Amino acid sequence: MTENKIERFKEERQRLNDIVMKYAGLEIKRFWNLDSRVYKDGALPKKVKELLGLVASLVLRCDDCIMYHLIRSHEEGVTDEEMEEALAIGLIVGGSITIPHLRRAFDAWDQLKKSDANKD
Amino acid sequence: MTENKIERFKEERQRLNDIVMKYAGLEIKRFWNLDSRVYKDGALPKKVKELLGLVASLVLRCDDCIMYHLIRSHEEGVTDEEMEEALAIGLIVGGSITIPHLRRAFDAWDQLKKSDANKD
Amino acid sequence: MTENKIERFKEERQRLNDIVMKYAGLEIKRFWNLDSRVYKDGALPKKVKELLGLVASLVLRCDDCIMYHLIRSHEEGVTDEEMEEALAIGLIVGGSITIPHLRRAFDAWDQLKKSDANKD
Amino acid sequence: MTENKIERFKEERQRLNDIVMKYAGLEIKRFWNLDSRVYKDGALPKKVKELLGLVASLVLRCDDCIMYHLIRSHEEGVTDEEMEEALAIGLIVGGSITIPHLRRAFDAWDQLKKSDANKD
Amino acid sequence: MTENKIERFKEERQRLNDIVMKYAGLEIKRFWNLDSRVYKDGALPKKVKELLGLVASLVLRCDDCIMYHLIRSHEEGVTDEEMEEALAIGLIVGGSITIPHLRRAFDAWDQLKKSDANKD
Amino acid sequence: MTENKIERFKEERQRLNDIVMKYAGLEIKRFWNLDSRVYKDGALPKKVKELLGLVASLVLRCDDCIMYHLIRSHEEGVTDEEMEEALAIGLIVGGSITIPHLRRAFDAWDQLKKSDANKD
Repeated sequence: MTENKIERFKEERQRLNDIVMKYAGLEIKRFWNLDSRVYKDGALPKKVKELLGLVASLVLRCDDCIMYHLIRSHEEGVTDEEMEEALAIGLIVGGSITIPHLRRAFDAWDQLKKSDANKD
Repeated sequence: MTENKIERFKEERQRLNDIVMKYAGLEIKRFWNLDSRVYKDGALPKKVKELLGLVASLVLRCDDCIMYHLIRSHEEGVTDEEMEEALAIGLIVGGSITIPHLRRAFDAWDQLKKSDANKD
Repeated sequence: MTENKIERFKEERQRLNDIVMKYAGLEIKRFWNLDSRVYKDGALPKKVKELLGLVASLVLRCDDCIMYHLIRSHEEGVTDEEMEEALAIGLIVGGSITIPHLRRAFDAWDQLKKSDANKD
Repeated sequence: MTENKIERFKEERQRLNDIVMKYAGLEIKRFWNLDSRVYKDGALPKKVKELLGLVASLVLRCDDCIMYHLIRSHEEGVTDEEMEEALAIGLIVGGSITIPHLRRAFDAWDQLKKSDANKD
Repeated sequence: MTENKIERFKEERQRLNDIVMKYAGLEIKRFWNLDSRVYKDGALPKKVKELLGLVASLVLRCDDCIMYHLIRSHEEGVTDEEMEEALAIGLIVGGSITIPHLRRAFDAWDQLKKSDANKD
Repeated sequence: MTENKIERFKEERQRLNDIVMKYAGLEIKRFWNLDSRVYKDGALPKKVKELLGLVASLVLRCDDCIMYHLIRSHEEGVTDEEMEEALAIGLIVGGSITIPHLRRAFDAWDQLKKSDANKD
């Protein structure tokens, strides 16, 4: 995975969100709002909440959802060891059927880490 | 999504159906037949049945199935409001994990509507 | 299934909803609200929306959700034929893995119909 | 699990099948027929087909479906070792989320084996 | 849910684990071992790992798995607010189909909290 | 599907496995090991085990997993008739939602068979 791919993911996500909002009624808009609220700092810190979203996305095998929570986890300063332990739980809970998603998750994580290195 | 993409979807679907039929035994052929029969007009109109197939496809998160039922719903004259309400039910039942599929669904729907406009 | 079982289902559902509300924060409360809003009359009538919720629940194989939408569909005047056609779509989309839930759905539906007859 | 429980499972299954058939239209009836046909002897022997149905049921986490294929596998003479290897594949593919079902599967299998011993 | 129910859950789980181990080969035993290892303290604390297991279990809708991680989260000192925020993420990710499981989760949590009060 | 596509699948799988192993701790490595062990010859022959993995992958709708077990089944000498019967079970268990995956499975199988013919 190239850094470019992560940027394209974000752009396509924005383009599609705009189309959803063109058609969305009140319920869809409220759901969108709820979906951002539950990841805010609270009794549990944002970092933990992103990992909860990430593992839920891995066991449900949704690549776009995994990518989103990987990017957010990276922004929240999740370390390699924390990421590996969270993904290992997802793998054990969800089984080998999650492996193709786990592979793509580590590939994207590897790219996110490399883009850090490039910034130094 | 471009109009072209919808056409390519239909062509690829046909090409692959031909390969399935090359190998299919009696049970697979009968299942194919059942799969078209359950969407025929009956006590429930075809339009409602396509929406039932669409929402089932959304909560099970199958992009190809969603696309097929979107195209069929469009042919049956489903309006923007009806489509939005059906997809909103799928989103609430299935949760945020359906959002990437919901985005692609509205993108395809938007294209189907634009192709209508082009015909005028 | 006895009529009693349907009443017990409703009572237990209420008891548990009260416990959820004892702990629920704003997001869970808002989700509960959205979950009732999407089934209101709109461009699609309530009856169709209950069938959408029912088929989604069948393919996702959630007995409690199926029971709830069966009761609501019955209240909205869904006929035997409409119910059968909706469940047939769920069976074809979801496969034989839905059969245990389909059996319990028809069992509950049969009881709901018998309770009608008793009222006459 | 007691032997009694396996008998009650079979009786309840029959009672519910009768209710399904009371309401079933042509499509549901044809699906029922297909669902028995695919497990008949063919290029693959019945025993292997029951194990395919069993592992599919385990990874999809359907207790009734697992129970049915366990009983059928037992009738087809599947050994303890073959059963253990098939279930191990289901566990690895499906992950720890299948464990509650795996526990109940071995419990039922243990009962089926004990009922054999009682016959001697 | 009564305190008794939580005790019965633990006893039945132990009884069934013993039956699994009677039949288990090396792979199933190793998986059992892995399944306990991934929740040990590491870069992420045990408490967070139990919440990861809990949310994964909620979105995959496995009552026994939810119950197990609730009991473990309670042992690790998770507060009501932390529990509510974790379950809210599961609800938003997994949708209304998780609600019956969410209800039973809060019911068990409520019992676990009451059993604390009884100890004082 | 072209022969090239199967080769690219294998190469990409290897590239991604290397990235996983760069980050993997002991648990992920052990899981990888278990995932290869359960498909070894035992009381059930390798061929049957690959078909068990294939049908589990089809009903869970994981294209990469299906592709992997198709390639392995082909190496183990599975015939067209055996493949068709195994996939038919997956279709009946998993329903029409598996059809897009079934189509791609037969497409890949067709390519694997053609590549045999080219070797003669």
